[in-house]
Amino acid sequence: MAQPITTALDPEQQRIAGEALRGTVVDLIDLSLIAKQAHWNVIGPRFRTVHLALDELVAAAREFTDSAAERATSIGVSPDGRARTVAEQSGAEGFAAGWQRDDDVVEAITTNLAAVIRRLRQRVDVTEKADPVSQDLLIAITARLEQLHWMWQAQLS
Amino acid sequence: MAQPITTALDPEQQRIAGEALRGTVVDLIDLSLIAKQAHWNVIGPRFRTVHLALDELVAAAREFTDSAAERATSIGVSPDGRARTVAEQSGAEGFAAGWQRDDDVVEAITTNLAAVIRRLRQRVDVTEKADPVSQDLLIAITARLEQLHWMWQAQLS
Amino acid sequence: MAQPITTALDPEQQRIAGEALRGTVVDLIDLSLIAKQAHWNVIGPRFRTVHLALDELVAAAREFTDSAAERATSIGVSPDGRARTVAEQSGAEGFAAGWQRDDDVVEAITTNLAAVIRRLRQRVDVTEKADPVSQDLLIAITARLEQLHWMWQAQLS
Amino acid sequence: MAQPITTALDPEQQRIAGEALRGTVVDLIDLSLIAKQAHWNVIGPRFRTVHLALDELVAAAREFTDSAAERATSIGVSPDGRARTVAEQSGAEGFAAGWQRDDDVVEAITTNLAAVIRRLRQRVDVTEKADPVSQDLLIAITARLEQLHWMWQAQLS
Amino acid sequence: MAQPITTALDPEQQRIAGEALRGTVVDLIDLSLIAKQAHWNVIGPRFRTVHLALDELVAAAREFTDSAAERATSIGVSPDGRARTVAEQSGAEGFAAGWQRDDDVVEAITTNLAAVIRRLRQRVDVTEKADPVSQDLLIAITARLEQLHWMWQAQLS
Amino acid sequence: MAQPITTALDPEQQRIAGEALRGTVVDLIDLSLIAKQAHWNVIGPRFRTVHLALDELVAAAREFTDSAAERATSIGVSPDGRARTVAEQSGAEGFAAGWQRDDDVVEAITTNLAAVIRRLRQRVDVTEKADPVSQDLLIAITARLEQLHWMWQAQLS
Amino acid sequence: MAQPITTALDPEQQRIAGEALRGTVVDLIDLSLIAKQAHWNVIGPRFRTVHLALDELVAAAREFTDSAAERATSIGVSPDGRARTVAEQSGAEGFAAGWQRDDDVVEAITTNLAAVIRRLRQRVDVTEKADPVSQDLLIAITARLEQLHWMWQAQLS
Amino acid sequence: MAQPITTALDPEQQRIAGEALRGTVVDLIDLSLIAKQAHWNVIGPRFRTVHLALDELVAAAREFTDSAAERATSIGVSPDGRARTVAEQSGAEGFAAGWQRDDDVVEAITTNLAAVIRRLRQRVDVTEKADPVSQDLLIAITARLEQLHWMWQAQLS
Amino acid sequence: MAQPITTALDPEQQRIAGEALRGTVVDLIDLSLIAKQAHWNVIGPRFRTVHLALDELVAAAREFTDSAAERATSIGVSPDGRARTVAEQSGAEGFAAGWQRDDDVVEAITTNLAAVIRRLRQRVDVTEKADPVSQDLLIAITARLEQLHWMWQAQLS
Amino acid sequence: MAQPITTALDPEQQRIAGEALRGTVVDLIDLSLIAKQAHWNVIGPRFRTVHLALDELVAAAREFTDSAAERATSIGVSPDGRARTVAEQSGAEGFAAGWQRDDDVVEAITTNLAAVIRRLRQRVDVTEKADPVSQDLLIAITARLEQLHWMWQAQLS
Amino acid sequence: MAQPITTALDPEQQRIAGEALRGTVVDLIDLSLIAKQAHWNVIGPRFRTVHLALDELVAAAREFTDSAAERATSIGVSPDGRARTVAEQSGAEGFAAGWQRDDDVVEAITTNLAAVIRRLRQRVDVTEKADPVSQDLLIAITARLEQLHWMWQAQLS
Amino acid sequence: MAQPITTALDPEQQRIAGEALRGTVVDLIDLSLIAKQAHWNVIGPRFRTVHLALDELVAAAREFTDSAAERATSIGVSPDGRARTVAEQSGAEGFAAGWQRDDDVVEAITTNLAAVIRRLRQRVDVTEKADPVSQDLLIAITARLEQLHWMWQAQLS
Repeated sequence: MAQPITTALDPEQQRIAGEALRGTVVDLIDLSLIAKQAHWNVIGPRFRTVHLALDELVAAAREFTDSAAERATSIGVSPDGRARTVAEQSGAEGFAAGWQRDDDVVEAITTNLAAVIRRLRQRVDVTEKADPVSQDLLIAITARLEQLHWMWQAQLS
Repeated sequence: MAQPITTALDPEQQRIAGEALRGTVVDLIDLSLIAKQAHWNVIGPRFRTVHLALDELVAAAREFTDSAAERATSIGVSPDGRARTVAEQSGAEGFAAGWQRDDDVVEAITTNLAAVIRRLRQRVDVTEKADPVSQDLLIAITARLEQLHWMWQAQLS
Repeated sequence: MAQPITTALDPEQQRIAGEALRGTVVDLIDLSLIAKQAHWNVIGPRFRTVHLALDELVAAAREFTDSAAERATSIGVSPDGRARTVAEQSGAEGFAAGWQRDDDVVEAITTNLAAVIRRLRQRVDVTEKADPVSQDLLIAITARLEQLHWMWQAQLS
Repeated sequence: MAQPITTALDPEQQRIAGEALRGTVVDLIDLSLIAKQAHWNVIGPRFRTVHLALDELVAAAREFTDSAAERATSIGVSPDGRARTVAEQSGAEGFAAGWQRDDDVVEAITTNLAAVIRRLRQRVDVTEKADPVSQDLLIAITARLEQLHWMWQAQLS
Repeated sequence: MAQPITTALDPEQQRIAGEALRGTVVDLIDLSLIAKQAHWNVIGPRFRTVHLALDELVAAAREFTDSAAERATSIGVSPDGRARTVAEQSGAEGFAAGWQRDDDVVEAITTNLAAVIRRLRQRVDVTEKADPVSQDLLIAITARLEQLHWMWQAQLS
Repeated sequence: MAQPITTALDPEQQRIAGEALRGTVVDLIDLSLIAKQAHWNVIGPRFRTVHLALDELVAAAREFTDSAAERATSIGVSPDGRARTVAEQSGAEGFAAGWQRDDDVVEAITTNLAAVIRRLRQRVDVTEKADPVSQDLLIAITARLEQLHWMWQAQLS
Repeated sequence: MAQPITTALDPEQQRIAGEALRGTVVDLIDLSLIAKQAHWNVIGPRFRTVHLALDELVAAAREFTDSAAERATSIGVSPDGRARTVAEQSGAEGFAAGWQRDDDVVEAITTNLAAVIRRLRQRVDVTEKADPVSQDLLIAITARLEQLHWMWQAQLS
Repeated sequence: MAQPITTALDPEQQRIAGEALRGTVVDLIDLSLIAKQAHWNVIGPRFRTVHLALDELVAAAREFTDSAAERATSIGVSPDGRARTVAEQSGAEGFAAGWQRDDDVVEAITTNLAAVIRRLRQRVDVTEKADPVSQDLLIAITARLEQLHWMWQAQLS
Repeated sequence: MAQPITTALDPEQQRIAGEALRGTVVDLIDLSLIAKQAHWNVIGPRFRTVHLALDELVAAAREFTDSAAERATSIGVSPDGRARTVAEQSGAEGFAAGWQRDDDVVEAITTNLAAVIRRLRQRVDVTEKADPVSQDLLIAITARLEQLHWMWQAQLS
Repeated sequence: MAQPITTALDPEQQRIAGEALRGTVVDLIDLSLIAKQAHWNVIGPRFRTVHLALDELVAAAREFTDSAAERATSIGVSPDGRARTVAEQSGAEGFAAGWQRDDDVVEAITTNLAAVIRRLRQRVDVTEKADPVSQDLLIAITARLEQLHWMWQAQLS
Repeated sequence: MAQPITTALDPEQQRIAGEALRGTVVDLIDLSLIAKQAHWNVIGPRFRTVHLALDELVAAAREFTDSAAERATSIGVSPDGRARTVAEQSGAEGFAAGWQRDDDVVEAITTNLAAVIRRLRQRVDVTEKADPVSQDLLIAITARLEQLHWMWQAQLS
Repeated sequence: MAQPITTALDPEQQRIAGEALRGTVVDLIDLSLIAKQAHWNVIGPRFRTVHLALDELVAAAREFTDSAAERATSIGVSPDGRARTVAEQSGAEGFAAGWQRDDDVVEAITTNLAAVIRRLRQRVDVTEKADPVSQDLLIAITARLEQLHWMWQAQLS
């Protein structure tokens, strides 16, 4: 059942774009799990503000996960977003166990966003030639995550 | 920072209910990741029907994950829904890599649902004495998952 | 084709809960048909008020019919809501033919609600052990019908 | 309390139109109960598609039941939609008990729709002279049921 | 500027249909003004119910006024709905000045509806040959007003 | 049945405010009938723009009619908005019969608005002492009609 | 912490307007509690109509409570809406304990509204000079309560 | 695979009604393409008004296309709305290439509407005997297109 | 007029459940008044966050008040939510007069929530035998208040 | 083209009210630009709360700008809201360039609001005689800005 | 009237981008007509699923047609979407006449999508230099059509 | 406090993209102020059409202002949208004082749009290398403004 979905891309283009998209799926799922984890475990005077802002991040991460995964399928590449794959391949920084104070949460989320954005910037570069359609999606994801990064980092000042 | 959130339950009640809720969080996150994985990788004549039904399952699993996790916090127990925790502790059956035919997807989802329901039934029993409020939530989750289980199993007949 | 839908309940639990749910389906369909009949045939100075209140009752009865029937399927029991079954097995009190004055309608609806509630209370008792999930649904139905019963009986005072 | 609602029609016109509308009410209630019965008891690979399509049929049947019943009242004729009346006077074909495979459901629904449409066509004829306003409604019901009949029969091809 | 809007009807057809529609516009405007008058001046125990039901009648009358007037323009006939025209040509029964008890309001509205319906029934007859499209609209107006007539008359019983 | 509705105003205050509100009801009903008349009979290159703007004016006039009438009832004064009363007492300028060119419509509407506004300005003055609550409503009506007057007059330039 | 919120009013203006607003807050909270009490305890043939109308009154009272309280804060005056303050300072007439027949409810609500309106009229007078902005709000509250008073009193006729 | 969808009409009735509906489908698709073409290519001072009004026409044409096509299928006749069929069989007048001034657009649309209405009027006549249900739909389409024709022709005056 | 509303519960069951529900009504009304008081009087850097969160608490308290009161009526027990009753019988902790700093508000709300929850937990216990339907509602209220308690306590950390 | 829009005010009234409204337009545009500037440049732990609150202020300022400008046009006075006019004539205090800490933002916004409110209070006074309709609008603007001023100043405590 | 709309592009850029957009308009109109044709003529067991999915494709094609046509106008190029132009210039594969089985429909739609995507890919290439703004739109269209292509092809597997 | 927000761009990339975005913010604010100015001051026969179209332009300009400003912050650059900055640095053409005839307004808006588009085209070029994410946003703004430019210029023809 290899290749049930065909594509207009040549194999090399497909490989490059597919890899970029599969990596993005994994990073974004991890980001959404980390944000949910923080959403539940945050404590401190800014609890409510941070609690709500985290769900906005979850929503963005989930929506982009779907876009990236369905773009992968559109060029004939099967995405892999299972728990073990995410645990092993994610490029995010991770999040400590147990209750966390609001200041620590803000810093952890900022750091995780920066790590994911760095990898996305690289994927924007490598997909320019391989598949401008996929690149366009990666640019949109980067734009939104950089906006969120500003909003989280602004709270550290 | 041990116990920033207090509860009206005694320590043993808290331990029993907390464990049941933490386990539920892990199972439901895995169920949502499996359903998304299937949503992207299903192929075959019933593609569209199965593709759509899976997102309904994802929505249910995500909503109940949040309810269970926030119920845990409400009784002073920190939930853990990070990727590695899910990969190591989930009670779901899992899902194969790559493209999957629609018949296989229906069977896999039915099996995963049955496994998660079995564990939920046990948690309903153990929480009856410990915390009827938590039990009430577990009953609601069981009811919805059993309804979904019927809908998936009905397609196997 | 016996048992195409499986369940985590043992056969005896399944029999008790299934019987309770099937009886509920029949009673609620009859209640909705009676309320519609009254909705069309009521006359008198309070016509509009009663006419509107009856459709609220219809909506509640229909929604719970679906919940009860789908709960039955969820535990592997086939529901039966066909006209003849309802005509023969309903536990409601029934409704006279032809135009009916508003006072008589209020009394008839109150009486029918009381009859259905009595049977539901018994089903809440017998399902407690057999299946707490089904019991939970029956409690929710009872709560809503008792609220409606108050609203109708209050008009008799 | 004979004739609390008056009409501009003469007695014979009222009798003909009233009979046509009362018969339509009975047939449509039965159709809605059959469709719900099928909605709950269908099994097989096309479960979800059929399950959803049946609720569309239920919605149409219920809406037209109300229109026909209220048109009857508008010309001073009391409609009768109680369970026993439906069980005894319906012109629909009926539906078997227990779980039903999707193919059988599609066939049974197509047959029931055809039976109800045949009777509606006759009522359209007899009401043309008696009351063009009632005829107009019966034509609208026929149009929608014939559209649904096509959609169900198309699945048999 | 005679006849700026042309039509596919011949002059006699245009005259008949135009007259029927212009008369309908006048009757319906009067009906809406009477219903508003009653809406403001009703008193008595059923105040709220009657007050609300009158606005439903206003809404129906206004919507049909627009349909009838725009149908007249569609066949090249200028409608006239100015206050003096309505005061002089309306076929409604009228409404007394000052505060009115709820029972009297229900009777007055029922009587006015019956008067308007009688004239509509005649217009349905005369337009059948002249313009079936206009007749169709007059049938729809009659159907709705007869339904409202039932609802108001039912309160007299 | 004189004075079924009481008020905290003294008889003279009630008379002054009541007269101002009753006059406003009559003027606004006439304005809405004139605007509808124009809505149907306008022709010319700006047909669509004028046709739509007139319905905006109708909506405003109708909403304020209701507010003024219900304010009258709130201070124990029965409003009179029947067709003959409007035809005899309105302070609007009126509107010619038959099809009207768009330029003439714009001018007629501007003139009618100016006439109604002039009378409203006087009522704002006389109610200041008598009833500031009624004055407040008359000010709001004036503000909106003056805004509409600007919008219609701007088209004349 | 005296005066954390400053104002453009002079101390005497602030005192007069603040007193008027604080009194209004107390009266309106009491009115909303009385209306809710009636909403639950009403019985009799007009149950449904009265039951619904009371919730409309509750909604109005709650919304105006918030407006008055926040206007007080806007001019640097702390509002007090605690249960004991309301129990001791309210100018409403109160409501009897236990089930109440619909006629008695209508009369009690009318009386309570009249009492609150009388006090509001006085506050409108005293705030004219002190603070026209606060007066404007009190006028709006009076207008709405007088409209509701008419609607309740109309049911007594 | 001839005749997969059966009908209660006899072959001659089916032929007549089918032909009328197929012709309507073709005319309406062409009308919607012409209106879109005009929507994009109109220029001149009334650009915006005409641009918006055309999309209203597109919406009406598309909705009726669907109704007519699905009515054809309901009586067992396959509709044909492919580009070449429309290009060869449409009864509309057509539309010139390239940018068009607003006055010319209004005239062209009025002319096209008149042409389509003429053919619809004939189809209303021929289907009266063959199939009143189809005739009913054609009457509704005629009514709406004649209303739009008035609105466009009114702009020519 | 003793007992106008009947119930299926025996007198002792009715007494126990009725008392639990009446107490809940009083506590929740007080909680909503306290939260509103805090909503208006909070000051400090976290003003906006706390101000908004309090309205969420008000909404929850009000909705549950209605549910508890209407449940009481459903079992024939008259609820009492008048200001004096609340002032005398509430189990909440109360709230200081005048402006309050945000930290103090968070602590006061947390304390009040804890007091109300303790009493609810006891009512859940005593109603289990007396009336499982009422118990179900009390469990739902407890679950939501415990969730809110976590959210407020989390801000203290 | 002097005076294309006429008014019922005399020239002196027009001059006074026009000046007040034109000044208000300028101040409010500046306020909205300042609030947007702060919305983008705020940093610090309260970033999110302040960022969101500023957009609420922007929305209020923009809505009132439109109301004031359109009121000016309604009395025949041309408003001027161009960038240079705002830069030269605004009565607001202004806002520093570059990133700003949240505490500084709260203080700057409070100060700007106070400055604009002071000027509005004066305009409320001078327009009382000249044009009560314009005064009414200025009162509404003042009321809302004073409410916002409280909300911002409360954060300084 | 050549060139009523000017552009910032030079003539050669305009020619290339204009040609690409005009071709896209034609292809997408054809695709929407083909999808509608299939929507009406599909038969077979998967009727409903395919019938619904086709309307999703229609919606996408229509929306992109508008975007492409309005982009053409934005750079001064007149689009041509008339029936004959579409019939002669479309790059889609076409669709057979009469009833079509569901499997054949899925294959035909997949093939048509592939053909349109191939041409879009070429247009993405040629517009990169000529006009990145137009290219951006073509990339978005390609992305969505490739996603739909996957969804249709997945059903063939 | 230099650089509280970091970025993945190198300083030169940041400088180029930041300058482009800051310039865009200024131009778009000016465009929105000009469009509002025109919205209020337009007079002439096309008043309503132009008045409405201008608010569409305002909405677009405001939304893009926010996107550009937040994109600047996302790459660590502080945007400046204060009145004086706009007055001094805007690249728009400006707008005359006082009432303006509709033809002049259309021309002025077209000219201003062309000026802003020219500058945007240059910024699209310079940001391609520096930051494709920012370029993507600038392309989207250009596309929408060019569409609006067509719509305004089309009215000049």
